Amino acid sequence: MGKVKINEAYRFMVDCFKAVGTPIEAAEQQARVLIQADKVGHSSHGLNRLEFYLKDITIGACVPKNKPKILKENLSTAWVDANSVLGATASHFGMDIAIKKAKETGVGWVTVKGSNHHGMTGWWARKPAKQGLIGMAFSNTFTLLTPTRSKKAALGTNPISVVAPASQGETFYLDIATTAVSLGKIEIQRRKGEPIPSGWAQGPDGKETNDPNVAFATGCLMPLGGGEKTSGHKGYGLSAMVEIFCGISSGARYGHHIGSWTHAKVGVPHNLSHCFVAIDPENFAPGFGDRLAECMQHWRKLEPTDPKYPVVAPGDLEKMAETQTNIRGTVSYVPQQIASSIALAKRLKLILCWKVYANTAELVLETVILYKIRIAAQCCKY
Amino acid sequence: MGKVKINEAYRFMVDCFKAVGTPIEAAEQQARVLIQADKVGHSSHGLNRLEFYLKDITIGACVPKNKPKILKENLSTAWVDANSVLGATASHFGMDIAIKKAKETGVGWVTVKGSNHHGMTGWWARKPAKQGLIGMAFSNTFTLLTPTRSKKAALGTNPISVVAPASQGETFYLDIATTAVSLGKIEIQRRKGEPIPSGWAQGPDGKETNDPNVAFATGCLMPLGGGEKTSGHKGYGLSAMVEIFCGISSGARYGHHIGSWTHAKVGVPHNLSHCFVAIDPENFAPGFGDRLAECMQHWRKLEPTDPKYPVVAPGDLEKMAETQTNIRGTVSYVPQQIASSIALAKRLKLILCWKVYANTAELVLETVILYKIRIAAQCCKY
Repeated sequence: MGKVKINEAYRFMVDCFKAVGTPIEAAEQQARVLIQADKVGHSSHGLNRLEFYLKDITIGACVPKNKPKILKENLSTAWVDANSVLGATASHFGMDIAIKKAKETGVGWVTVKGSNHHGMTGWWARKPAKQGLIGMAFSNTFTLLTPTRSKKAALGTNPISVVAPASQGETFYLDIATTAVSLGKIEIQRRKGEPIPSGWAQGPDGKETNDPNVAFATGCLMPLGGGEKTSGHKGYGLSAMVEIFCGISSGARYGHHIGSWTHAKVGVPHNLSHCFVAIDPENFAPGFGDRLAECMQHWRKLEPTDPKYPVVAPGDLEKMAETQTNIRGTVSYVPQQIASSIALAKRLKLILCWKVYANTAELVLETVILYKIRIAAQCCKY
Repeated sequence: MGKVKINEAYRFMVDCFKAVGTPIEAAEQQARVLIQADKVGHSSHGLNRLEFYLKDITIGACVPKNKPKILKENLSTAWVDANSVLGATASHFGMDIAIKKAKETGVGWVTVKGSNHHGMTGWWARKPAKQGLIGMAFSNTFTLLTPTRSKKAALGTNPISVVAPASQGETFYLDIATTAVSLGKIEIQRRKGEPIPSGWAQGPDGKETNDPNVAFATGCLMPLGGGEKTSGHKGYGLSAMVEIFCGISSGARYGHHIGSWTHAKVGVPHNLSHCFVAIDPENFAPGFGDRLAECMQHWRKLEPTDPKYPVVAPGDLEKMAETQTNIRGTVSYVPQQIASSIALAKRLKLILCWKVYANTAELVLETVILYKIRIAAQCCKY
């Protein structure tokens, strides 16, 4: 793994967005959610995704300079047309409305059509939580989830995210795909040359596969719960629920009509959809934050099955990863990622101001590769 | 299995509730959700549970004659104290408020404390759906779910239910525990003397067990997703989310403070909690019901992995079971269930007007047992 200073990785993302005509604010908003994913260890949603967003902009599937607008409004709801802006722009717009309404009526529920991929969904649910509200965010995504008993995918990995503020500096943070795992996890096993556990993915015959190559090529992820015996129908139902809140409510593309991100067409908007919810717990029993903090602390103190792996509260792993990243001051990327960033910088005529730090604990071979990359990038002084 | 006329099973439940001092309306409301569970094939939530409710009433943990009240209200929210009434009474009260507010502002979000077990959660989410709204219901429950990595349970099976109205007579119906399976499913395997699949439950050492007896005695269900490799942390997080909406919001008992239903104490209210949500899709894009129906029909037409098991839409299995039950006119109970109903009828001095129909396709032995039960029950003419 090569290490890059956080603000340099972020600056590069912003520069790339700007280079393809993205207004500065939109570029920064989208880069912020990408770098956050890298910081908390969800690398599948970070720099790794940058080129998809850039391609969407260059082919006109995404139009960052547009403005989202409210199509219909009630005291606690809004229906928004994102007008093909970047997912981050659409999500700030939608969630801000939900927050405003939650402060007025107790709840804000906003559904957004005409959007693009908005990165790590938890980032948006975190926004109301910073203002003392419970935040929820949902998004439909490209078709990958295979309904229980089916041979083909028909829904997205459709994430559910819930973030709630607690006392004593605690925050409950849940951000989960409704598939057993994301495609990114299968990619990691593939890179390692290791089999995948049963319950993650199906092969072309519809049967569970343990081969990461077959799983990756087929693109049929199993729902959370895995097979029918272990209640995979629940993950399927939850993914469908997210689609009800997103595409089916907003009139965007939905489920089997979405297709794949890699097959974006020139000038055809992705027309993805999100749903943003904010709820003010002040409307319920006093002491919300204390009870939540007490729960989180109780969970951490539970006797673990294996003392090497202590029980964690939802969000702890992300928080720990973020703390470590901030201490280090760097985010880590695999050599291929760095190489493709160099190629991207050249293509967009950007200076890649990265000093790639090789991890001394890693193989010498990798260090050599990284060194070569650094030379190739004509890395300027940081 | 012995078959009993639907309305006779229902009438018996109502009579039992009345015999322990429940007002008629409350008795009927609670019996209706129990008989519905038997009708749709979720027998763990039907007649099987009746004695728990009756015991709660007799020991004063539940006080059916009380009245629920609103403690705090905003335009889209309400905080309700159920005042120890039956779960059904509390749930009608709470969901009616959510429905009213959804019609006024777009969303109604109600959290209820001081309640009791309310039966099959999907029954309550179905109420707004009958009026064209999306319905959601959540409930905290007795402590059974074991957080990922933990040796001990700390949350309930905390169900999530979402019901949405679609065109062409379709209804999306999802009602799932956030554990891989309910304790009832383990009980069924135990009765059959068959092992349970990995990913359902842990033994006292915290490791997965395939022994239904060990699983039942330990009472440590695994979250939806099973072990950590197959993303059990997601089910754990979803159960915690339900607790945030229920006990943590309402100030009722929550998570590890709840304990077990079998250990109810005299005069100590269970103080369980529910959350009811209604959303009016009319506030979003026109055509909601058409899109949802199109999805449900698409899912059913997907090529199945095994042609013997066609793909179903969420709620199809329950709907098919209910249709079959209505055609037959009877609900089916295991002999032990019938025997315990006979004992219950004697104890409460009620006439058990059941003519138990033995299933001719079953073992002669079972028919003989049922015949004896019928005699013992001094079954009156139906």
